[in-house]
Amino acid sequence: MTALIDQLRTIVGDAHVLTEGDLTAWEQDWRKRVRGKALAVVRPGDTAQVAAVVKACAAAGTAIVAQGGNTGLAVGSTPDASGTQIVLSLQRMNAIRTIDAANLTVTVEAGCILQTLQEQAEKAGFLFPLSLAAEGSCTIGGNLATNAGGTQVVRYGNTRDLCLGLEVVTPQGEIWEGTSGLRKDNTGYDLRDLLIGSEGTLGIITAATMKLYPMPVAQLTAWAALPSLDHAVTLLGLAHKHLGAGLTGFEVMGQFALSLVGKHMPQLRVPFLGDAAAPYCALLEISDNESEDHARARFEALLETAFEDGCVTDAVVAENLTQAHQLWHIRESIPLAQAEEGLNIKHDISIGVSRIPAFVAETDALLQREIPGVRLVNFGHLGDGNLHYNVQAPAEGDAKAFLRDEEERVNTLVYDAVEKFGGSFSAEHGVGELKVHKLEKHKSPVALGMMRAIKRGLDPQNIMNPGRVLRA
Amino acid sequence: MTALIDQLRTIVGDAHVLTEGDLTAWEQDWRKRVRGKALAVVRPGDTAQVAAVVKACAAAGTAIVAQGGNTGLAVGSTPDASGTQIVLSLQRMNAIRTIDAANLTVTVEAGCILQTLQEQAEKAGFLFPLSLAAEGSCTIGGNLATNAGGTQVVRYGNTRDLCLGLEVVTPQGEIWEGTSGLRKDNTGYDLRDLLIGSEGTLGIITAATMKLYPMPVAQLTAWAALPSLDHAVTLLGLAHKHLGAGLTGFEVMGQFALSLVGKHMPQLRVPFLGDAAAPYCALLEISDNESEDHARARFEALLETAFEDGCVTDAVVAENLTQAHQLWHIRESIPLAQAEEGLNIKHDISIGVSRIPAFVAETDALLQREIPGVRLVNFGHLGDGNLHYNVQAPAEGDAKAFLRDEEERVNTLVYDAVEKFGGSFSAEHGVGELKVHKLEKHKSPVALGMMRAIKRGLDPQNIMNPGRVLRA
Repeated sequence: MTALIDQLRTIVGDAHVLTEGDLTAWEQDWRKRVRGKALAVVRPGDTAQVAAVVKACAAAGTAIVAQGGNTGLAVGSTPDASGTQIVLSLQRMNAIRTIDAANLTVTVEAGCILQTLQEQAEKAGFLFPLSLAAEGSCTIGGNLATNAGGTQVVRYGNTRDLCLGLEVVTPQGEIWEGTSGLRKDNTGYDLRDLLIGSEGTLGIITAATMKLYPMPVAQLTAWAALPSLDHAVTLLGLAHKHLGAGLTGFEVMGQFALSLVGKHMPQLRVPFLGDAAAPYCALLEISDNESEDHARARFEALLETAFEDGCVTDAVVAENLTQAHQLWHIRESIPLAQAEEGLNIKHDISIGVSRIPAFVAETDALLQREIPGVRLVNFGHLGDGNLHYNVQAPAEGDAKAFLRDEEERVNTLVYDAVEKFGGSFSAEHGVGELKVHKLEKHKSPVALGMMRAIKRGLDPQNIMNPGRVLRA
Repeated sequence: MTALIDQLRTIVGDAHVLTEGDLTAWEQDWRKRVRGKALAVVRPGDTAQVAAVVKACAAAGTAIVAQGGNTGLAVGSTPDASGTQIVLSLQRMNAIRTIDAANLTVTVEAGCILQTLQEQAEKAGFLFPLSLAAEGSCTIGGNLATNAGGTQVVRYGNTRDLCLGLEVVTPQGEIWEGTSGLRKDNTGYDLRDLLIGSEGTLGIITAATMKLYPMPVAQLTAWAALPSLDHAVTLLGLAHKHLGAGLTGFEVMGQFALSLVGKHMPQLRVPFLGDAAAPYCALLEISDNESEDHARARFEALLETAFEDGCVTDAVVAENLTQAHQLWHIRESIPLAQAEEGLNIKHDISIGVSRIPAFVAETDALLQREIPGVRLVNFGHLGDGNLHYNVQAPAEGDAKAFLRDEEERVNTLVYDAVEKFGGSFSAEHGVGELKVHKLEKHKSPVALGMMRAIKRGLDPQNIMNPGRVLRA
């Protein structure tokens, strides 16, 4: 292995091959669930160096784990414990190469922090709409590798939908230069979408051409009290009809999730907190290309119809940007409030929007029957059918023991219910190492067979993030 | 082979295995460029029959050409001349399985005619936005297999962007049931997008779940006179900014293209025909979720800004739906007018929007220098960077001889220029048999290598539409 390390030092420079000292930042996953051990952390400075590193590792038969901001939630970007894997960090490749205003595109290197990309796009007068909790640390390369979702998917889609082309280093260390800014290109198989979401197992994304959008003139946010989850689905349909593409956010939150925010962050002042007539609340966002007055008028027309239909019992519209941020902040504080409350089991599931009320009713009842005292934290991106259906330990008793004894059973109950309702056990977080066995259990054997054939075809040595997504 | 035919008759019934009589409809491509000979035309009635047919063919080592409406432009859905290939027609599988209003999805079988799907969606109160010239004959399965584009891509994307899930029969005759209506599902490789656009070479799409949209309340169309193609790009940017997602169409047409319509269809009354101050015209469409008055006001605000900026010299806004259809009809009549004028060489290219004016100026000059008298028919979907950059034989002389002697040279000049400008030689028509050699020439060898590895992995027998997209 010393020979390989020497080779890597020659390729990227001594300063960028880390083998000693505290490598926690690269070896420990974001949620601190698994700690690995790297043979070395290698930080190439350009695409040619990435290709050379991969070539050297391929020749040595050494596995490579690509890493961006290392903020993933499924343990996909840290090395295993063997001490034989290279972590290839893209952090130094963080340039925004070009912004093409007339083409509405930006070409950016994989290691660029999402927030930097948002800010640079805004400086150029455009919106880059991908937005998620980790945006201050995650990288666009990681967003692409995991097909990240976030809060604007109802209008702009997942990361996949924002990408027009990729630059990729293959498992053989060759460079596929595909950073096209083309909106139509039907010349062969869709390698771009195959690489997106493949979590570093089919190649390494080094750069991408992403879509930009005109910056909306106005954005408004409303918070609505809802008599039930069924009414949330009705309200979503009304919002689509009235606002069309103006609807850029639609989040739903159950009262128990909100009560945790109220309890642990009382300064946040949650609207309709504890309102018995409103077991759910929704956060709606509208973006408008005309004016704030116009946005407000459209919002009010929507809410008026919703009141008449009985699917909203009360609502507030943010008076200004500060209030809008406060409402979003409440929604985004749920995970932290959950953590303050204690240990809990997280899920990131999706179900067809129309089936969500039945799924929640049935699964809530099932869990409460099977595990008395369990507390259900329900919130998520209803506009995309994506729920973070989380399970908090009972208020009384030992939460640690609960997790140790019940996590697997809770997961099985939830994921089996998800499968029954035709849903997905991983809506936006991916598979990584954490959900490999879930994939084997819940994915169709035919699909799994196709995935394995593709993996074998593109990475016959199995050196790209082995054991993640698929086991050998 | 008789044994296989007997087997197929048992699977789908005698009436649905055609071996005699006039099979032109299945053996001849849409543009009548290539006539093939099928061993048999097989018309399964459901997915299980498709799977059984594929299994029987795989066992016999017999190649399968899947076919929908057979309207493709790249010779991808007809058999070769050997008489050994099966045509598997999906025409009998044409059911709309379910419309899920709350989920905004429709699940439909591959053989459903696009126009039927549009009409059924509209009946349910929704828009299915895919729209293209062949919509009365083409099928959604063919649209998916070729990732069809059309006129609404600037807003809704290509067929790929409208699809949430597929049901597919693999080259081994297994069924992958993936007709999910999920908007977020990160569980492994994106098999859906790999199959979409693979032109029947990786498996057979038997059904799909597609997105629906709320029906717009109003649609308006305008026709603008432009001083240059540069100004068309500027106008497109203004339209994006002013109309946002309201911009649902943006077509551009050169005066020579329009003059052919004026000459051969004088009843169509082309606005600004022959206006020397307007070498290009643009057709813009706005869709609005509020009202026709609102749509008109937005359109007028855009055009006012465009006048002030000098990028539009004159414009008409359709007064009613009939006028709007007439304007679209002019645009859609260009190919027919070209045919009336005589033989011509067609291209379906895409370039980054910002580079289109330079590409056209440089390539027009190049062609006129190399082939004196050549006439350039320029029109296309500027909003997607997609031009139908067609070349009409010189007005004088033998057009047949021109095509025979010059087609290959013209194609080489055009496609080399496209490559130089980072564009695609097939924006929306695909590769089929017609452009296999173009793919080999213009696609990166690394990408080609990845495509071949995928094809070998998924279809090791090479029985799925062999020789199309990739040669063995």
